[in-house]
Amino acid sequence: MKTLNIGLVGYGFMGRTHSNAFHQAPRFFDLPMKPVLKAICSRNADRAKAFAANWGYESVETDWRTLIDRKDIDLIDIASPNDTHQEIAVAAAKAGKMVMCEKPLGRTAAEAQAMVDAVEAAKVPNSVWYNYRRVPAVTLIKNLIDEGKLGRIFHYRAKFLQDWTISQDLPQGGEGLWRLDVSVAGSGVTGDLLAHCIDTAMWLNGSISEVSAMTETFIKQRKHTLTGKVEPVGIDDASAFLARFGNGSLATFESTRYARGHKALYTLEINGEHASAFWDLHDLHRIQYFDHRDEGRVRGWRSVHVTDGDHPYMKHWWVPGLQIGYEHTFIHQFADFVTAAAEGKSVAPTFRDGLATDHVTDAVLKSALTKQWETVGR
Amino acid sequence: MKTLNIGLVGYGFMGRTHSNAFHQAPRFFDLPMKPVLKAICSRNADRAKAFAANWGYESVETDWRTLIDRKDIDLIDIASPNDTHQEIAVAAAKAGKMVMCEKPLGRTAAEAQAMVDAVEAAKVPNSVWYNYRRVPAVTLIKNLIDEGKLGRIFHYRAKFLQDWTISQDLPQGGEGLWRLDVSVAGSGVTGDLLAHCIDTAMWLNGSISEVSAMTETFIKQRKHTLTGKVEPVGIDDASAFLARFGNGSLATFESTRYARGHKALYTLEINGEHASAFWDLHDLHRIQYFDHRDEGRVRGWRSVHVTDGDHPYMKHWWVPGLQIGYEHTFIHQFADFVTAAAEGKSVAPTFRDGLATDHVTDAVLKSALTKQWETVGR
Amino acid sequence: MKTLNIGLVGYGFMGRTHSNAFHQAPRFFDLPMKPVLKAICSRNADRAKAFAANWGYESVETDWRTLIDRKDIDLIDIASPNDTHQEIAVAAAKAGKMVMCEKPLGRTAAEAQAMVDAVEAAKVPNSVWYNYRRVPAVTLIKNLIDEGKLGRIFHYRAKFLQDWTISQDLPQGGEGLWRLDVSVAGSGVTGDLLAHCIDTAMWLNGSISEVSAMTETFIKQRKHTLTGKVEPVGIDDASAFLARFGNGSLATFESTRYARGHKALYTLEINGEHASAFWDLHDLHRIQYFDHRDEGRVRGWRSVHVTDGDHPYMKHWWVPGLQIGYEHTFIHQFADFVTAAAEGKSVAPTFRDGLATDHVTDAVLKSALTKQWETVGR
Amino acid sequence: MKTLNIGLVGYGFMGRTHSNAFHQAPRFFDLPMKPVLKAICSRNADRAKAFAANWGYESVETDWRTLIDRKDIDLIDIASPNDTHQEIAVAAAKAGKMVMCEKPLGRTAAEAQAMVDAVEAAKVPNSVWYNYRRVPAVTLIKNLIDEGKLGRIFHYRAKFLQDWTISQDLPQGGEGLWRLDVSVAGSGVTGDLLAHCIDTAMWLNGSISEVSAMTETFIKQRKHTLTGKVEPVGIDDASAFLARFGNGSLATFESTRYARGHKALYTLEINGEHASAFWDLHDLHRIQYFDHRDEGRVRGWRSVHVTDGDHPYMKHWWVPGLQIGYEHTFIHQFADFVTAAAEGKSVAPTFRDGLATDHVTDAVLKSALTKQWETVGR
Repeated sequence: MKTLNIGLVGYGFMGRTHSNAFHQAPRFFDLPMKPVLKAICSRNADRAKAFAANWGYESVETDWRTLIDRKDIDLIDIASPNDTHQEIAVAAAKAGKMVMCEKPLGRTAAEAQAMVDAVEAAKVPNSVWYNYRRVPAVTLIKNLIDEGKLGRIFHYRAKFLQDWTISQDLPQGGEGLWRLDVSVAGSGVTGDLLAHCIDTAMWLNGSISEVSAMTETFIKQRKHTLTGKVEPVGIDDASAFLARFGNGSLATFESTRYARGHKALYTLEINGEHASAFWDLHDLHRIQYFDHRDEGRVRGWRSVHVTDGDHPYMKHWWVPGLQIGYEHTFIHQFADFVTAAAEGKSVAPTFRDGLATDHVTDAVLKSALTKQWETVGR
Repeated sequence: MKTLNIGLVGYGFMGRTHSNAFHQAPRFFDLPMKPVLKAICSRNADRAKAFAANWGYESVETDWRTLIDRKDIDLIDIASPNDTHQEIAVAAAKAGKMVMCEKPLGRTAAEAQAMVDAVEAAKVPNSVWYNYRRVPAVTLIKNLIDEGKLGRIFHYRAKFLQDWTISQDLPQGGEGLWRLDVSVAGSGVTGDLLAHCIDTAMWLNGSISEVSAMTETFIKQRKHTLTGKVEPVGIDDASAFLARFGNGSLATFESTRYARGHKALYTLEINGEHASAFWDLHDLHRIQYFDHRDEGRVRGWRSVHVTDGDHPYMKHWWVPGLQIGYEHTFIHQFADFVTAAAEGKSVAPTFRDGLATDHVTDAVLKSALTKQWETVGR
Repeated sequence: MKTLNIGLVGYGFMGRTHSNAFHQAPRFFDLPMKPVLKAICSRNADRAKAFAANWGYESVETDWRTLIDRKDIDLIDIASPNDTHQEIAVAAAKAGKMVMCEKPLGRTAAEAQAMVDAVEAAKVPNSVWYNYRRVPAVTLIKNLIDEGKLGRIFHYRAKFLQDWTISQDLPQGGEGLWRLDVSVAGSGVTGDLLAHCIDTAMWLNGSISEVSAMTETFIKQRKHTLTGKVEPVGIDDASAFLARFGNGSLATFESTRYARGHKALYTLEINGEHASAFWDLHDLHRIQYFDHRDEGRVRGWRSVHVTDGDHPYMKHWWVPGLQIGYEHTFIHQFADFVTAAAEGKSVAPTFRDGLATDHVTDAVLKSALTKQWETVGR
Repeated sequence: MKTLNIGLVGYGFMGRTHSNAFHQAPRFFDLPMKPVLKAICSRNADRAKAFAANWGYESVETDWRTLIDRKDIDLIDIASPNDTHQEIAVAAAKAGKMVMCEKPLGRTAAEAQAMVDAVEAAKVPNSVWYNYRRVPAVTLIKNLIDEGKLGRIFHYRAKFLQDWTISQDLPQGGEGLWRLDVSVAGSGVTGDLLAHCIDTAMWLNGSISEVSAMTETFIKQRKHTLTGKVEPVGIDDASAFLARFGNGSLATFESTRYARGHKALYTLEINGEHASAFWDLHDLHRIQYFDHRDEGRVRGWRSVHVTDGDHPYMKHWWVPGLQIGYEHTFIHQFADFVTAAAEGKSVAPTFRDGLATDHVTDAVLKSALTKQWETVGR
């Protein structure tokens, strides 16, 4: 079988989820290419070596340019912080590599546009790790919508609520905390959390036309780990917006890291003329589904445990009632990527899909400043 | 309109729920007779007067025999402790009065048999206040079963869990605590809580053939309020049993006052070949309903908010989504009673139904002693 | 005991809930005045008579002016459609009557201001029936906030979702449908549903400073029952807004009658530094409460069944675990009103509180037109 | 690092979960030995080869005796049907191999006793795959009990409900269906499902003293795949029992494959004097925890999302709010096994623990026949 030689950039949280996917996908899915964990790249050689030893990478690099130059690498997978995405992706595409990139694609739509241009010019398979599309429950909702079960859509609502930055004592920046450093992350919860909500929303319900947003930074100053000084906080701690979709439906979106009691509560709901669906990351294997065509007396929200063989992806796993977890979403995306890549194709969400989300987050951040409704760019 | 003159015996918790029903039923239901709260009877004259003033009873009696002798009373409603039921009911029936009686009907089936004999000989309308049959959600389950939606029944399970007697310091007997005094109550949770579960179960699923039970008294001695002494506790604190129904289905039943965290958690579930249903007193306006005939991918337990106009009893109340409470079950039963009584009929659960439940609780208590399966008497 | 003679205007859904409160409050609460259902007023004499017979009103009027002129009336209770509120309330106040009024107080803040001026000039006890403040669970949240248990507030979110107007065939206006006729109702879901959310929100979390809103009318034309013609629909079918509170917290609000699957899903959540709380009208006797001060391993959202004697209002009802329903909120408000009125005082929500909500709904409707953030008037 | 050479017997569902654990454990846990997937053994050489290719086994055997004879195997892992457990395990132990065995250990306590004797005589590390002990949520409950947080225990209840054999058309025996063939499986749901409930129960709450049970076979005849004939069904389709624990607490247990609507609903609840806990396999990352010591007004069942770093096993996985799945329980058990085995020790549940469960299932099956309470053997 043909091999797919992978070079990973980044060894953090996402480096682990991706590496796990590279190992697990071929055991549970029939793949047309055999993934080989060829190299892990990080500026910190010691950490890279430890990561390579644990995850079975054959080699280590400390400069991503060197990695891209290697002839034995087919796929560059970018799992490093947001401020590195553009440069690495563009270079990789130019070198003719396939590229997978963590979300958000760019810190801005401008960055993302350059990345799209590069992969499309190079005609290389590409994908952005908006992993939640491949929670089986979320994929099931997509299927139900595509089959027309919901009918005309009236409403969409999504939230991504966390509470891990409420303490004033938490520093910004540094190991594991670059998401709080605006220069690295680009934005706060808008790019980190809302971007997930937006990607799923547009996949399920089409394009977003215009938004009215507000953002807030509740804690204005935090010590910066790298400088050791108390500095102004540049990220948005909370971000919410109203939206109108191209199909005429209305939406509310909200994300925050100050919602006490919620760890990673990504919820979405879509209301159609005939049926509605709801999903919640904290119980990720379930959907709540309501169908108005049920007989009136026994009409209610159905709690569907999405663990059967006829549910998306689930025939590859265990038996009904036995659930899978968070990391499986990456396995699914990687399995789909390899299948498409073997034919030279990209799998959604492509870089172009990632750009679309960046256009919305740009509009959100702009609207929060202008206090106007902003039209979403294309 | 013809009046229905009511004489109530007892002013406690159940005296309040019944009196409320007498007032509310005619405002929300079209009744063929107009209830008149004629007299409240209690040995304690002061309490009786206060109760009469609050609830609008026209007069007060301190001896139930006098109450029964009154010509202006049509219906004797018994809401006094269990040890008084038989004597009052038999006398009332002999005097030609309609009789309603709090549950359990008798402390034993023998007591209940005498009561059945009396009302059937006198041919007077009679009913036992097993109020949970008339929670709209429970009535809905009954309707679904009767329509055959569940198919062949395989399993039934019911629990009634409380936690209010865990403290060693709680006395037995006295005001509001007669349920802990075996001589008054007859038994502990078996007659108080399991009796409810059994009544509903047989209504929904037919007769129970045999049982294997265990009971336990966790706290062996408690101070008795009336004697002021620490005395052995005679009641069962917990009672559980296995059962086989006449239709071949299997069941488990459990009740206790030592299930920390549960206030009045009466739950029931019935599993049929095609469909299943679940109900929970703590969310009494909902049923969980599962129908295997739903399309597989979106098959799940439906959470049905039983508040629509086509749900049992609900067209008499508010609008969809707005729920009613505990006391409404008594209003429903009384409305049904009056409607039937106007034609000289009884409404289920009749005294004969109450006797059937007493036969089961007798068998449960016997089995707990003999450690044998016991056949339920008739 | 002094009597409180009541004259009710309107016999619809709200006429029933209020009348029930007048009967039930004195049975369950110790009131300093005895409510007397003196008169019901409606232009339709037949309906008024039938209503009076059912609910025990002593007399019937067909002109509210006549009702106000009566010397034997102490309290005018307005349960008629929104377009009648101002005129009746102002006249009643001028006549020195106490006034209770269904929500929203006015169709606009201007209407409401006139009503506030009238009752404050006349110094008569007054209250608006924003009944959800007196769901025991909601009152409990208020108490927890007032005690400081939540700490600094970061977020508030509320929704009121229904689905009963999705059908194109539903007419606007006419019996039971005046809420769809903009000339009578003033607005659609903004005044009908969001007003509830706003009243509770400001009670719990203080004043709202500014809003950015969007509204939509999904079905543009409906047959009007009164004219028999298909006419443009003037009401908002859906309304959502972003808000900033005076205390610096952020909020999202949404209401609609097009959220398939939801009957009357009013939910609210408030997130504080230390604790958070959530409530849902479909399970109105529960709150979800999260306290970060709990030990980490067993920290979670507590599902509190608000049915204990130490919960607000609950000692007046049954025993722990047994719930009450929707209509009890009116009983509670009326009991509080009578207690305050006996001392010549008003009970919140007063007309002034109702005016504050109308200022917010005015700003919401304005913002939806201007597509600007709008400052809330005072 | 020392290697741990593994020989697996069986390629079915459990062969997959074990093999996955062998691969994943060293990536997420620091192990003192490096697992090597040395050989897979199955009578069907083709299937064994395919399995080996997919899962990375170095070699294939078709006779387990040959496997045991191999010097390069340290650990024999038994994932073949129940009727093979005893013979393989005893031979493996005699050959000085470590042994892991799928549950139930034996089809009877007599079989299990022989296995215990063998591993204890050989002093080899051994463990039974009662995997649910190592759901982080279940382990958390164990920790809370051991710390005394629950106080004196009054009640335990467990159920394992499925619905996959309701169809009359399902054959007994054959590929994937040996669990329906009594000669292979030993019993029906008693050994398959109740055994899990019993193992967890005794781990959490100590030994079971006596039981009263009932079993039922709803469908009396099914086609047997191997013979092609309709034959009597020998297994129990449903099994329930009452139990008394050594600590004086009472319990109910139930399992069935005829509970329409439930896929693999293993639930357990334990009620103590001070606190209670509940767990449900369908939402396996949560516990419901009630602590009576919480302040009364905000006392409620806490829904604890067991995904934090201070929860059992979870620091090895992702971040708070992101859950793991069913297969991780095997990873945890294997990681613990390797850690203990490196020091020559066994990890619970050991074969002796597995024997204790077989004693209870023996008593259950006996009681169902004798219709007597049966004392549990030792």
